[in-house]
Order: sequence, then structure tokens, then C-alpha cells
Amino acid sequence: MSVTAPLGFRAAGIAAGIKTGGARDLALVVNDGPSRAAAGVFTRNRVKAAPVVWSEQVVKGGKVRAAILNSGGANACTGHPGFQDTHVTAEKTAEVLEESAGQIVVCSTGLIGERLPMDALLPGVVTAASQLSRDGGLAAADAIRTTDTVSKISFKRGEGGYMVGGMAKGAGMLAPALATMLCVITTDADVPADQLDAVLRRAVAVTFDRLDTDGCMSTNDTVLLMASGASGVVPDPAEFEKRITGLCADLARQLLVDAEGATKAIAIEVVGAASEEDAVTVGRSVARSNLLKCAIHGEDPNWGRVLSAVGVTDAEFEPDRLNVAINGVWICRGGAAGDDRDKVDLRPRDVTITVDLSAGPHAATIHTTDLTAAYVHENSAYSS
Amino acid sequence: MSVTAPLGFRAAGIAAGIKTGGARDLALVVNDGPSRAAAGVFTRNRVKAAPVVWSEQVVKGGKVRAAILNSGGANACTGHPGFQDTHVTAEKTAEVLEESAGQIVVCSTGLIGERLPMDALLPGVVTAASQLSRDGGLAAADAIRTTDTVSKISFKRGEGGYMVGGMAKGAGMLAPALATMLCVITTDADVPADQLDAVLRRAVAVTFDRLDTDGCMSTNDTVLLMASGASGVVPDPAEFEKRITGLCADLARQLLVDAEGATKAIAIEVVGAASEEDAVTVGRSVARSNLLKCAIHGEDPNWGRVLSAVGVTDAEFEPDRLNVAINGVWICRGGAAGDDRDKVDLRPRDVTITVDLSAGPHAATIHTTDLTAAYVHENSAYSS
Repeated sequence: MSVTAPLGFRAAGIAAGIKTGGARDLALVVNDGPSRAAAGVFTRNRVKAAPVVWSEQVVKGGKVRAAILNSGGANACTGHPGFQDTHVTAEKTAEVLEESAGQIVVCSTGLIGERLPMDALLPGVVTAASQLSRDGGLAAADAIRTTDTVSKISFKRGEGGYMVGGMAKGAGMLAPALATMLCVITTDADVPADQLDAVLRRAVAVTFDRLDTDGCMSTNDTVLLMASGASGVVPDPAEFEKRITGLCADLARQLLVDAEGATKAIAIEVVGAASEEDAVTVGRSVARSNLLKCAIHGEDPNWGRVLSAVGVTDAEFEPDRLNVAINGVWICRGGAAGDDRDKVDLRPRDVTITVDLSAGPHAATIHTTDLTAAYVHENSAYSS
Repeated sequence: MSVTAPLGFRAAGIAAGIKTGGARDLALVVNDGPSRAAAGVFTRNRVKAAPVVWSEQVVKGGKVRAAILNSGGANACTGHPGFQDTHVTAEKTAEVLEESAGQIVVCSTGLIGERLPMDALLPGVVTAASQLSRDGGLAAADAIRTTDTVSKISFKRGEGGYMVGGMAKGAGMLAPALATMLCVITTDADVPADQLDAVLRRAVAVTFDRLDTDGCMSTNDTVLLMASGASGVVPDPAEFEKRITGLCADLARQLLVDAEGATKAIAIEVVGAASEEDAVTVGRSVARSNLLKCAIHGEDPNWGRVLSAVGVTDAEFEPDRLNVAINGVWICRGGAAGDDRDKVDLRPRDVTITVDLSAGPHAATIHTTDLTAAYVHENSAYSS
């Protein structure tokens, strides 16, 4: 179902020959309206891929007819010729849809620094358009995978009967903002572009933006939200935001669980912070400690590595008032050893590390994974 | 030779039973003068080990008679009882040397969060004092090792015949500032404490402080510089600084080569920066990219991962003016693919990644290592 769960959307996913090996590598998602309201959030990396530079401009107009997405190449760091490739891709998509290129979002994912095989991609656009259907959501979600072992899709029904649906990809280079991810979210609710934009920014900030598996920020991250209005439902704003946030959280969780080489899903829950910003800063610092991530992989409740990661931040805290629990056992109290570390059960896949800064009422959770030999293997053997 | 290469110093390294297994774990370095001028640089981590809190105060006085250093336990995050352990260690050392505890530096390294076995450590202080000798430098360097596979020592002769010597330990948690390292540097030159302090800060800033193997900052880092004045030589200030900087660079290089699990020594050389600070910022960001470090391990010249790490910084640069060379081959020019990546030979252990920001005349080099399955193994299997 994914992006075609809501009314007004068709999709396709095909093998255009961009990847070697014959796997699907080109997805097309079309909004048949009646509305074309859209919003997008993009990577904050200053080295932006050509499709990001293009699509940021498209989304500023507030209207998107379609998104064309390829795996098998990021089209990042490809200079002016690469930007031209994106432009030509948008033009070709517009042509087959009898549309303006100014309403075509382009997304790419894969190896940085290489040109896309346009002789495969452009005929692929025509094929994809010919296969557009109301059932095409799963094929589209499959076509955007790189090292993802499974497709990531989600859909939810909102109050009054409207639908939201989405697909995402991303397995490595997951860090704010965003992850190395592409995500397309659709809805048949009738919501104007400025409201979509506000909702999407807030939803991304507390979901995708709090995922940090390897601290590496991508050049291509894109989250696109398109509304067709085809259900005729004008949703309650708060309820709609809750629905979109829930969908993003669901997809973010799927990205986390499928992160490269991961055997643990680790929630770094920071409480007692003087501000939410402090909580996020501390959570990120802990989530990026390679030493801690190795320890959790080895099922070693090494809370000293948590404290040493807290200590490098500028958050408000006193070292001798820090408390740390791992899976509910407060093994560090007042900055020193607390309950017996042998009580910590680290065998389950899900691990929660709670850091209490004892400095205020604010909290935030950052999601990360363990660091494994499989991560090293995947990222040293695969040019991605 | 290490710390006993200069005149006026005696040292010892013994097995006190702090570590299980009978390896050396306690080192004592004594300055017999006539001068006791000293300076120290300590971790910037806000979670500081008890010996760091103690020794910072000692060094402020500008005079140090001796340093007592143990491996087998960091005495970090041990609360007031841990601080008391450090205090008692200093008192015991002072007692056997017939000295004031206010001139005794204490250093500890090992697992965070556990109390030291004082019933082994305190008798060890007496034994170490009884074994002090002019030949004790090697045993002392051996006694401070944790996961270090080899001892790190260095000594150099200065103009006019004075000597500088040093020992260091550190293999994981190497990041500014400093690395997870202890380092004791000695000299028989006659140099006052304020000059030692200025020289040491500048030397550390361009050597240990530019080592970043895993982005993790320790709670225990200490670099101590002690001058005995026993040679009677008052060195030329510039020449003395050059000698101390060279010694630090030599020890930093030894730490890098022995970093946990590393198979490559990677120099991230940032040139064309608008400021030295920009160069350091970019170098650190690249040095902390797990994805890049995996790629280098796999001998894959993945320059896209370099650019994506540059792009997350706030340094001055234009994405389409970035150039990257790996081992001398400019595989990225103007932010896009440059020379043939097949020309890059990544088989040697030493790898140089040159990042040209095309934004100014400044430069800096950060040293890091590759990320390997052996690193993961060592840090998931060993509680350190």
C-alpha cells in the first residue's frame, strides 16, 4: 500500500538498469489531485546532491505533481553536468505526464560522485509512467532500496476517513538531519501547502531527526509530503499532525531496525534536562560514542562510557548528580557506581539507556544502534 | 630510557596487583632537582577522574616532586571515596619520599566507575619507591599500559646538551583533548614553570590534540612536563619548544600506530582554509566519519564520504570549489569527480587525505585510523 494507500495517488517501481544486477531502481509517485499541495524537508549538509538543490526549489512553490526517485546513484558531487542530469530527468517526467517540470521532485540515492546512466534512466521514466497504478506503492518502495534489506512502508487512517501513507529508505549514514534517507509521504486529506510544511517540519524534528546510527549526514536526504485532497476530508489540524508524526515515527523505527550491521536498537533517553536542546545534545553525544556502541554490542553495561560522552557536551549538569540506568537498572547514581551491574540484562534487541541530568524538567530520546563488525564489513566492502 | 633519559630523574615500574594477571601496573617518576618546575595539561571532559581533579591543583603550584601512575583502574566516576583514594595515594607517595603531598601528581587509567584496590596500591607505592633508579624509565613506561600493545617512549638531545624524555600510554578513546592518554615528559634543562606551561600548551595543541582515532574523549587525560634543571643548561626558548613539540609528536605518532584495531594511519591534511580553526574543524569532522574510516579499511578511495563530512561543518568553503586527493591523486576536483580513482594506491599503511577548501592560506592536519572489526571486537569484549 505505502504511498498509494491514500486516494489520488498512483505509483510504479521498475528496473531501469541503473543498478547492475536487474533489481528495481526507479520509482515514480504521482499525485492526481484534485490538490497538489506539498512540502519537503531536506538535508542540512552543505554539500547537497543535485536532486536536493532542484527539489528544494520545486517544493518552495508549494505544489508537486510527481516525484521520480532512483536508487543506484546519489548524483551528488557531480558538478554542473550532474545538475543537468537532474533537470533532464524532471523534464522527461514532466513530458510523459504532460506537466510542467517545475512540479516534479527528483530524488536520488546511492554512491556519491558518479554520474547517473541517463541512457538507462530516461527510458526508465517512460516505462515507469506506463506502469503507474493504484497498486504500485509496494513496487515503488522496493525500487528505492540501497543497502536496505527490507522495504519500509507505513499507512494509517485518520479521523473522518482520510488516509496517510509513506515509504522510506535508509540504512547507513543515518544522522540528523536527516538520515541518508528518502521518504515520500502521501495523504488524501485536503490540507494546504503551508500547513503541510509546518506539520512536516515538526514531525521530522522529533522522529527522523532523532535517529543517529552512525553520525554521518548524507548529501541526499529528502522527506516529501504530498496531499491530493481526494478524500474531501479537511482534518482537524492537531489530529492530522499526530497522524503524520506517528507515520514518521513508524518509518524511522523501520530504518533503525534495518540499520547496517545492527544487532541492537538503542534508545538514549535523556531526562532531567534544563532544556529540550540540552537533552538532544546529550542524547546525540552518547549515541555517537563508538566505544559505548561497541560495549552494548558486547552486552557490557559500560556506564563509564556514557558519562564520558555526557562530559564532552556543554549541557547544564553537575558530574556528581548524574544518574544512568541501562534497561531500568540504575547502575550509576550521583556520578558513581550505583546498583549492581550484573542485574542489567542486555540480551534483548531493544536497549534503553536513561541519562538523568538532574538539571531540570526536559527530556528527549535519540535512537541509535550498536557498532558491529558487520557494519565495518558492509561499509568497507561496499562502495556506497 | 624514556623519562629517565634526562639527568635528575629516577623511575620505577612494578606489579602491585592492581591488574589481575601479574603485569606491571604502578609507575613512579621522581624529580630529584635541583629544580622542580612543572606544568600539566588535562582532559577537557567535564566528567573528570579524581586524579585529574587532584593533579590540576598540584600543577597550579608550578612545582612537582613526583608522579605516581597506575593502570588497571581509572578512578573516574567514583565519587568522594574515589577522591579520597587519590588523596591517600598522594599522601603515601609523599611519605615514602619525605615530601609534601601537594607536590605529588597522581594519574590513573583503566576501567571507569570502579574503586581502586587500595590494599594492593598502597604497598605498591612503597615497593616502587624502593626500586627507583636511573634505569627505571622503561619499566615505568611498561607499567602504564592498558590495551597498548607496546610501550611508548621517546627522548631527544637539545642544543647545549640538555635532554628531554617522555613516556605515554593510550590506544582507545583517543580524541581531543586529549586522547585517553597519560604522558609524562621530563627534561634536565633549567626552565621555569610558567615557560614550561606555555610551551606544553602549544606543543599539545598541535600534537596530541590533533589525534582523533575514535572521537571519544577520556576522563583521565594528563600530560605532565617536569624539569629538573640538572644539566645546568638554560635552553634557547624557541629551540626548547621545538624539542618538546618534536617529542610530543613522536609519542603521538606511537599512540596512533598502536590504536586499537587499526590497520591504517590516516593523516587528514586540510589546506586552503580561511583559518587554522576552520582547518582543524574540517579535519576533525572527516576523521570522525565512521563510513570513511570503514572505506579506507577496505582500501576504497570513497571521496564522497570525505565531502559529506566536510559539508556538515561551518567552515568557510564553496561546495563546487572543494578538491580532495587521496595519497596524492586528486580524485575530486571542483566538488566533482577528478582523476581516475583506480590510480589511488591504498595498500600502504600510511594514508594521506588532502582536503583543499580553496578558501584561504591556512592548514592543519588531524591524525586518525581506520575503523575495523578488530576495534569493534576489542571494545565489545573488553570492559575498559
